[in-house]
Amino acid sequence: VAGGAQVPGRSVTSKALAVLSAFDRRTPRAGLTEIAASAGLPISTTHRLIGELVAWGGLVRQSDGQYEIGPRLWALGLLAPVSRKLREVALPFMQDLAATTGENVHIAVRTGIHALYVERIAGTRSVAVVSRSGSELPLHATGVGKVLLAHADPETVGQALTRLVRVTPYTVVDRPRMVRQLAEIRRRGWAETSEEMTIGTCSVAVPVLDSDQRVVAALGVVATSSRRGLAKLVPMLQLASRGITRSAGAGDGVDL
Amino acid sequence: VAGGAQVPGRSVTSKALAVLSAFDRRTPRAGLTEIAASAGLPISTTHRLIGELVAWGGLVRQSDGQYEIGPRLWALGLLAPVSRKLREVALPFMQDLAATTGENVHIAVRTGIHALYVERIAGTRSVAVVSRSGSELPLHATGVGKVLLAHADPETVGQALTRLVRVTPYTVVDRPRMVRQLAEIRRRGWAETSEEMTIGTCSVAVPVLDSDQRVVAALGVVATSSRRGLAKLVPMLQLASRGITRSAGAGDGVDL
Repeated sequence: VAGGAQVPGRSVTSKALAVLSAFDRRTPRAGLTEIAASAGLPISTTHRLIGELVAWGGLVRQSDGQYEIGPRLWALGLLAPVSRKLREVALPFMQDLAATTGENVHIAVRTGIHALYVERIAGTRSVAVVSRSGSELPLHATGVGKVLLAHADPETVGQALTRLVRVTPYTVVDRPRMVRQLAEIRRRGWAETSEEMTIGTCSVAVPVLDSDQRVVAALGVVATSSRRGLAKLVPMLQLASRGITRSAGAGDGVDL
Repeated sequence: VAGGAQVPGRSVTSKALAVLSAFDRRTPRAGLTEIAASAGLPISTTHRLIGELVAWGGLVRQSDGQYEIGPRLWALGLLAPVSRKLREVALPFMQDLAATTGENVHIAVRTGIHALYVERIAGTRSVAVVSRSGSELPLHATGVGKVLLAHADPETVGQALTRLVRVTPYTVVDRPRMVRQLAEIRRRGWAETSEEMTIGTCSVAVPVLDSDQRVVAALGVVATSSRRGLAKLVPMLQLASRGITRSAGAGDGVDL
């Protein structure tokens, strides 16, 4: 019953999405060959899919033959709750946190086994960080990521535990140790990292809940490792996190 | 040779994109039935496509069963040149224009037969406008739209001319008259509208070129109709437009 030329087990939709997945922060523009390689598809199939995506406005072809994300996908992305709701609601709380603590504050949501950074605010006394909305980091090596992983479904946890990639000498790559850390994060309500993603920086993070008490995001502070007692900031993070939940509920009452 | 259950003439990719197209500014969340109706697809097909889009992160299912755009599409959209380049390069020039003229300034690109508003800056002496990046208006009824239409390919112009929808009593819906206006816009280098989209407002707009002298965007000012001599602002708009082109070229030299 499966369609003629279709490769079994891989739908046309998944192929079109694989074409889009060829683009990320490091690869905002790509050529046909590069996209085909990234998507694992023949050149001819890739060419046809790109044509459909260009016609729809999801991709644009530049004068040098390279492709980039089209304006239509950008406009569609602005409709996402992370942009329309979470980002807008959280921003004032994050600004207050950055001003009060002087540290870098960020908020992230989970996409697969990655923490997607929705917004970052640079603190006054911290080193300048390039504010990058939309970047992704592995869950297991970051404070916000550990919070999100601690509250993820078993399938996601299973996937993440098989990919505990070493980023620095201090990244936790031992599965039983990570499982114990996740249980501890759920029990005490916050996570911490020390030079597990970047040498010289440490972080603390807390969950952000929606009105149904589901963890929808994580709010965290990143500071240089010389900053002692980062854990003292946890109550402030928790206060801001509650503020975000209340502020979101006070609006149209929909999910964050 | 055509695949089994596939409707002839409509590819699976186009169906998946039709599912995504069910979402816009007015409909940021939608249920299964609504999406199926908007996409013109059977419920079963729609359900399967939604499943694939949710698995990829392009859509998310909320606790009430409604769907919204997912964080992955949001992150992908941030990679678009309109966001990464045009918006970033144009913003300071637009702020200067708004501060100097006191009027609302906006910049738009073309998607099909619509003007997509990339950014709006509210002027000090204008009525407060809700700044809405990502909204779309018809090409034929707006100043920026007319500029974009005047420089569009013949196919797009043909499509737009068959859909000259009347928005106000002053909207130009006569084809020969619109064709003359477009020629005039190309000749003198700027467009104007008077109460053609909204009663009580008028606008002027100029093209924004890339380094290859292609029209990639339109920069415009919108004011209340009581504001006389809006055309006097055209040289300032042209100056800002040149600044944007130069500023973009001074960077990595890639297309806007």
